[in-house]
Amino acid sequence: VSDFPETGQAAAEGLGDLGQELTQAVVAALAEGREDEARELIGGLHYADLADLLERLPTDHRARLVETLGDGLDPNILAELDETVRERVIEQLGLDQVAAAVAELETDDALDVVEELDVEDQKEVLDALPDEERTLIEEGLSFPEDSAGRLMQRDVVAVPTHWTVGQAIDYMRDFDGLPNDFFDIFLVDPAHRPAGAVPLSRVMRSQRHVALAAVMNADMKLVPVETDQEDVAFLFRQRDLISAPVVDGAGRLAGVITVDDIVDVIYEEHEEDIMRLAGVGEEDDLYAAVMDTLRSRFTWLLIHLGTAVIAAFVISLFAATIEQMVALAILMPIVAAMGGTASVQALAVAVRAIAMKELTPTNTFRTIGKEVVVGFLNGILFAILIGLLAWVWFGNGALGLVIGLAITTNLMVAGLAGSAVPILLQRWGVDPAVASSAFLTAITDVVGFYVFLGLAAALLL
Amino acid sequence: VSDFPETGQAAAEGLGDLGQELTQAVVAALAEGREDEARELIGGLHYADLADLLERLPTDHRARLVETLGDGLDPNILAELDETVRERVIEQLGLDQVAAAVAELETDDALDVVEELDVEDQKEVLDALPDEERTLIEEGLSFPEDSAGRLMQRDVVAVPTHWTVGQAIDYMRDFDGLPNDFFDIFLVDPAHRPAGAVPLSRVMRSQRHVALAAVMNADMKLVPVETDQEDVAFLFRQRDLISAPVVDGAGRLAGVITVDDIVDVIYEEHEEDIMRLAGVGEEDDLYAAVMDTLRSRFTWLLIHLGTAVIAAFVISLFAATIEQMVALAILMPIVAAMGGTASVQALAVAVRAIAMKELTPTNTFRTIGKEVVVGFLNGILFAILIGLLAWVWFGNGALGLVIGLAITTNLMVAGLAGSAVPILLQRWGVDPAVASSAFLTAITDVVGFYVFLGLAAALLL
Repeated sequence: VSDFPETGQAAAEGLGDLGQELTQAVVAALAEGREDEARELIGGLHYADLADLLERLPTDHRARLVETLGDGLDPNILAELDETVRERVIEQLGLDQVAAAVAELETDDALDVVEELDVEDQKEVLDALPDEERTLIEEGLSFPEDSAGRLMQRDVVAVPTHWTVGQAIDYMRDFDGLPNDFFDIFLVDPAHRPAGAVPLSRVMRSQRHVALAAVMNADMKLVPVETDQEDVAFLFRQRDLISAPVVDGAGRLAGVITVDDIVDVIYEEHEEDIMRLAGVGEEDDLYAAVMDTLRSRFTWLLIHLGTAVIAAFVISLFAATIEQMVALAILMPIVAAMGGTASVQALAVAVRAIAMKELTPTNTFRTIGKEVVVGFLNGILFAILIGLLAWVWFGNGALGLVIGLAITTNLMVAGLAGSAVPILLQRWGVDPAVASSAFLTAITDVVGFYVFLGLAAALLL
Repeated sequence: VSDFPETGQAAAEGLGDLGQELTQAVVAALAEGREDEARELIGGLHYADLADLLERLPTDHRARLVETLGDGLDPNILAELDETVRERVIEQLGLDQVAAAVAELETDDALDVVEELDVEDQKEVLDALPDEERTLIEEGLSFPEDSAGRLMQRDVVAVPTHWTVGQAIDYMRDFDGLPNDFFDIFLVDPAHRPAGAVPLSRVMRSQRHVALAAVMNADMKLVPVETDQEDVAFLFRQRDLISAPVVDGAGRLAGVITVDDIVDVIYEEHEEDIMRLAGVGEEDDLYAAVMDTLRSRFTWLLIHLGTAVIAAFVISLFAATIEQMVALAILMPIVAAMGGTASVQALAVAVRAIAMKELTPTNTFRTIGKEVVVGFLNGILFAILIGLLAWVWFGNGALGLVIGLAITTNLMVAGLAGSAVPILLQRWGVDPAVASSAFLTAITDVVGFYVFLGLAAALLL
């Protein structure tokens, strides 16, 4: 989606993209049984790149490469892999090696891997872990799925509120148990409740004698452990955060969420939105098996079959009218198609507004009202266009008038339904991205066919 | 989209959400002319929250609040506002106050505000800026839109490669021109080419005498200034980055991109994807004026009218057939609807794979092949369902057979087109999210109607 295809491509080559050559070379080496060469080819790769490479290999080559790597497989690769691919790799590795890998990961990554396992596999992996690691992961699993508690890193740099910059620096230099990467030092009171955060860059710029409390950021937002990850992501975006403290029910500092995990959440939630709008399961990606994809598509198609049958029933009410005037059968899909397209447009704007928390009681009715007005005005424009077309095509001015009226009505209904249906679904606790489009198709098809054929029956025959 | 509506709501209240009460109170105060009270109500708000509040107010109340705030308006609010709302606020403030505000913003935020202005307004604002600030922004504007050059912060902490941790700390304590927030220290050679990055947390944990080069991260990725922002975001996600060095054509360190800007980019790009898939302009949101929304919707509806007319033309080829058997008119929308739904499913999976850079020459044909197989298998299932339905409804077994064949064909075509069209568009340099769905509707409508009515004409009459 680059405006500069050439530089964009060149840049992509320099960035995460592995380039085709390496993939091809690895495939060739594996195909010809030269495992040593394959291992050499991938020797210098970053684990994120190696995970990408594994995803792209055909299933059998991937299995052979995993076998070749054996115990040398970097545990971080497991955390990076796409879920479908990860499942297969885990199956191949066996639970013993998975447990060994999980033990080496940071808590949040380890949790990521463990939470996707079956209950029995989870138990087996947990039992094989060191006590401390197991306790942390079990605590993580006790939080709701997709909550802040699942996202957070348990290792936090927390120091007493009365410390100075110098004390903090000495502590960090001498203490071995610090997390690998961190961006804020949290000040906590004796009950371990966070009182403020000091970004590392501010620690760096302050003299040693300065009190941390004097340079801390006190208006930070505390994230309760049970907060949904989408709300956490929204907060990070709104406040341009790098990390945020997570607190338990008693207000004690329980962990910290860092923005790199939030970036993953945003990608994940967005993918979900697009997949749900299209009626595809989340696990339905390039790497899913045919039968899984089949199953993921079937339900949605069945629902749409239901709406299509309802539309067919509406048409059947006017069978006699159509028999007398076959032009109606030719034109009626236009009325339905325009309504469907317009309702999806209104839906997209409403879904975005809901995701961005932009809808309030104050502007909800204004929004719906605007969509109806826009539908009416576009309706008039398209009524003229399509009316003229019908008139010229079938030499029947009254037919043009009827289709014009039907189009205008249907575009208004599309604006109303396209904005009101997702808002209502949201209010009833249903994900508007999942359920809206089937409703909308049903509404615009039924209204389109009924108004067009009904008006035709009343006015033309 | 929370699984826990109550806690989710409570949490949202505690996070970015202002709560309705404050908004209502401000509206009431403004409506009754109590400007002082309004100003007091919003006194303690974070600028991000105040920007949210401004967005949510009805246009006239918003204008009154901006007027009330006057010179006291925090410049950061301008950078946070939604584009449509920002445009109106800028119009109200006048270019003098905008220039004053821009002068106080960090370069990347300032660029964000200036790049959205008309060319003449840009010139006027730039002329009113201090020389140094103006030069930086003009340089920023010289980079392609949505490129790394536009995103980057120009203030970078760069030190010579031979420095020690202690030297870096002393430099940061004593030097006043450091950026407000930073996360890495970059090591540069005498030609100012980056040689490595040291995360602040690693500086913190090292003794003063340690060489920075000994603790630096040398395999960092360099981002060329002209890289598309979507590719930059992909890199941040893949490597879990917090900041990344941007280099000019000569490989010199030109600036740094931090992850908070990347979070905005990801939201923005994702919104664009959803809006494009639905055929809605980016500027078409809750705050757009009716006429702008109307215009943003019209083109897409016109394109879909085109595809609907093509479909109508195909139907008209079989007018005589329909006249003899009205059941065909009743059933034909089912064939088209199923094809359309299935093609959108395949499209969503392909668009996601393209965005994730998962498609390679190796797996492209496999992917398309899988979609055709899934279409065929689902086609068989739905052929049986719909065939039986048609048989029972119209008491005509041959009609059931014909619609079954048509459904199977159309679902296979939907799988083929739904995956191949976006891939081909991408290869031709066209955004697959924008153009695919109109193509797909045309293909599945035409194939659906043609095969169904054609088979009916050949086999049933």
